[in-house]
Amino acid sequence: MSNALYDYLIGLGKNAKLAARFLSTLSTATKNKALLAMADSLEENSAEIIAANKLDLDNGEKVGLSKTLLERLTLNAARVKGMADGLREIAALPDPVGEVLGMTKRPSGIEVGRVRTPIGVVGIIYESRPNVTADAAGLCLKSGNAILLRGGEEALNSNRIIAKTISEAAIKNGIPAGTIQLVDNDERESAEIMMRMTDYLDILIPRGGKGLIKAVQNQASVPVVLTGMGNCHVYVDGAANLEKAGNITINAKVQRPSVCNAAETLLVHSAIAEAFLPDIVKELRENGVEVRGCQQTKAIIPEIIAASEEDWDEEYLALIIAIKVVNSLDEAIVHINQHGTGHSEAIITEDYTNARTFLAAVDAAAVYANASTRFTDGNEFGFGAEMGISTQKLHARGPMGLTELTTTKFIIYGDGQVRE
Amino acid sequence: MSNALYDYLIGLGKNAKLAARFLSTLSTATKNKALLAMADSLEENSAEIIAANKLDLDNGEKVGLSKTLLERLTLNAARVKGMADGLREIAALPDPVGEVLGMTKRPSGIEVGRVRTPIGVVGIIYESRPNVTADAAGLCLKSGNAILLRGGEEALNSNRIIAKTISEAAIKNGIPAGTIQLVDNDERESAEIMMRMTDYLDILIPRGGKGLIKAVQNQASVPVVLTGMGNCHVYVDGAANLEKAGNITINAKVQRPSVCNAAETLLVHSAIAEAFLPDIVKELRENGVEVRGCQQTKAIIPEIIAASEEDWDEEYLALIIAIKVVNSLDEAIVHINQHGTGHSEAIITEDYTNARTFLAAVDAAAVYANASTRFTDGNEFGFGAEMGISTQKLHARGPMGLTELTTTKFIIYGDGQVRE
Repeated sequence: MSNALYDYLIGLGKNAKLAARFLSTLSTATKNKALLAMADSLEENSAEIIAANKLDLDNGEKVGLSKTLLERLTLNAARVKGMADGLREIAALPDPVGEVLGMTKRPSGIEVGRVRTPIGVVGIIYESRPNVTADAAGLCLKSGNAILLRGGEEALNSNRIIAKTISEAAIKNGIPAGTIQLVDNDERESAEIMMRMTDYLDILIPRGGKGLIKAVQNQASVPVVLTGMGNCHVYVDGAANLEKAGNITINAKVQRPSVCNAAETLLVHSAIAEAFLPDIVKELRENGVEVRGCQQTKAIIPEIIAASEEDWDEEYLALIIAIKVVNSLDEAIVHINQHGTGHSEAIITEDYTNARTFLAAVDAAAVYANASTRFTDGNEFGFGAEMGISTQKLHARGPMGLTELTTTKFIIYGDGQVRE
Repeated sequence: MSNALYDYLIGLGKNAKLAARFLSTLSTATKNKALLAMADSLEENSAEIIAANKLDLDNGEKVGLSKTLLERLTLNAARVKGMADGLREIAALPDPVGEVLGMTKRPSGIEVGRVRTPIGVVGIIYESRPNVTADAAGLCLKSGNAILLRGGEEALNSNRIIAKTISEAAIKNGIPAGTIQLVDNDERESAEIMMRMTDYLDILIPRGGKGLIKAVQNQASVPVVLTGMGNCHVYVDGAANLEKAGNITINAKVQRPSVCNAAETLLVHSAIAEAFLPDIVKELRENGVEVRGCQQTKAIIPEIIAASEEDWDEEYLALIIAIKVVNSLDEAIVHINQHGTGHSEAIITEDYTNARTFLAAVDAAAVYANASTRFTDGNEFGFGAEMGISTQKLHARGPMGLTELTTTKFIIYGDGQVRE
């Protein structure tokens, strides 16, 4: 391990911890004023940001990044304004810090309450999209946390100028230095060091592909919140309204296939397979979707590709869908609990008991009856901007907004009470 | 790694996962009936349990376990009844599973609610006290979780018979086999395998000494909740009522020194050090407490032992206290945030603003104004029995009761809605 790099990261960690102490008691007004100034500053420096982004795009083309990745990496005036508006939206959200979650007087005479506080220092390791730099920093500032941002090498020039712009604007407006810091290093080692900075980071959030998520899960000793792995299913029950089933299937697969709440597998009850499958496969194909089917599906529509066992575990993030015919609701639930990633799962049915059974038995962050999996989103659920969609069960499950960036502590008021 | 041991643990994990699926939808009545039957069964098998415990005690004496450890390990009829009563208390607590935490109708027309669900499979690695076997199994069953219990080698005979007794009683009463399983192996490797069973364990809770906690923190890829490390402080402010300060200091240090919410360090404001220290040091000594002081403390009471820098970080869990004179509230807060373990911290003061500042700025699970740190406990806070006191910030902070053994999921009701 490189000592200089280690010392550099520990130094950032120390700055962040010091900042976090002051941040935790900062007024909402101060935080909001800083967020608005950060937004203005991004727009004022738009040309400079776009110029730095051009360097990343040129490098990206040179090293042969895919068109999709280049598209994600691209900033233009509209996207810079989008980042700024994102910060303004965060300023408009309620401040979660300081909320008291009930207080009770106990028989001993002490009063015990629970109050929301910032977590402390948040680490985020992310890839590609430079807008995450501003979004994540804004969410952390509003929730009273310091943040250590470690983006991907492909976006280093963009991230550097964005972090500098918003950090300077924040500091000018009363936010402690050390609140928003970019790890200005793109070696794998810097991410690995972060994963073990238990004395400085209170939480680590990886945002990116499967490789990154697995590495963090295996190597991190800092507590982790896993986000964004979505092998989502739509299950069309025997008692489904086929029109709703068709609309929801198309929406869940086609509307934005590259995101984590898009559907990857369609499960269809055998009782309605012959009635439903020909039309939906036709419509999927008209929308450019490659269809892969199980044997029973192929028996009904012989010309489609045969699905392999691996297809049931695949998160395509593309215009591909796997279709499997199941013989019961229970078979659908077992399939989903076995192959799903615990993200978003939907049943389409008009049967009351089947809907209730599915909602109760499917083990995922968001379970739907008769609506598209695409709704799993902080804004759609009514919480505003989010740091990602947690697919784990501890601390945060589902869209991770401002509240999920806080913890609680107990505060106890007494008059000299001692324990008997 | 031993393949047989690995296969054995994976087998237990598979059983637990299967059990968890059924447990999640079990009725409260069924769970309570099983808990009461488990309690009765422990009492019925009391003689057999005490006989097995005798084997552990004999082994313990042979290998030279300390008197304290032997005391913790000891079971007698009263303690077996205590375990049984503990299960009855858990049966009487409200079932957290199924509680709906608000439901709102969104502009899209979908209704979004959040419902409490079991976590799934809980792993616990613990030492010494065999009563943990029954307590932890009872809490997990009530909250709808399967549990994998891995106790210490010193208690293997006791744990084996307790786990067998309660598991058999549970199964006879409609609880799926695999709900309560003891890891019948006391090699270090079995704990290490558990730490990485991400496909089978949803959460891992270590309960024991510093060595165990550190090993789990460093090696576990399963999400962990750290419990029970308590370097707790009492800070006597310049504006303290010295009678309250004396009572609380003695209670926090002396009432039960071996537990995690006992105080280890006393911080005293310099303005009242000369008025407070001579009496409190005398009273501590009369209670058999060894007193170690900073230079300023020694200047007032020369005959006490000098505290070293290491003393500020020590969790004695014994009749020893370190005393430090500080020159300001801020110095006290900085000391606590630097040396504390984030467990329980108290200020003694009659000054309104100082109390508020301390409650806001100290970063710990429980922060007290004018009451003893000894109150940090599930029963004292009103939640009933607990799995331990979490000192971490994610998921659970403070006493970890039934609610903290659950997670939530979003349930969404629609009528065919798709995302625009």
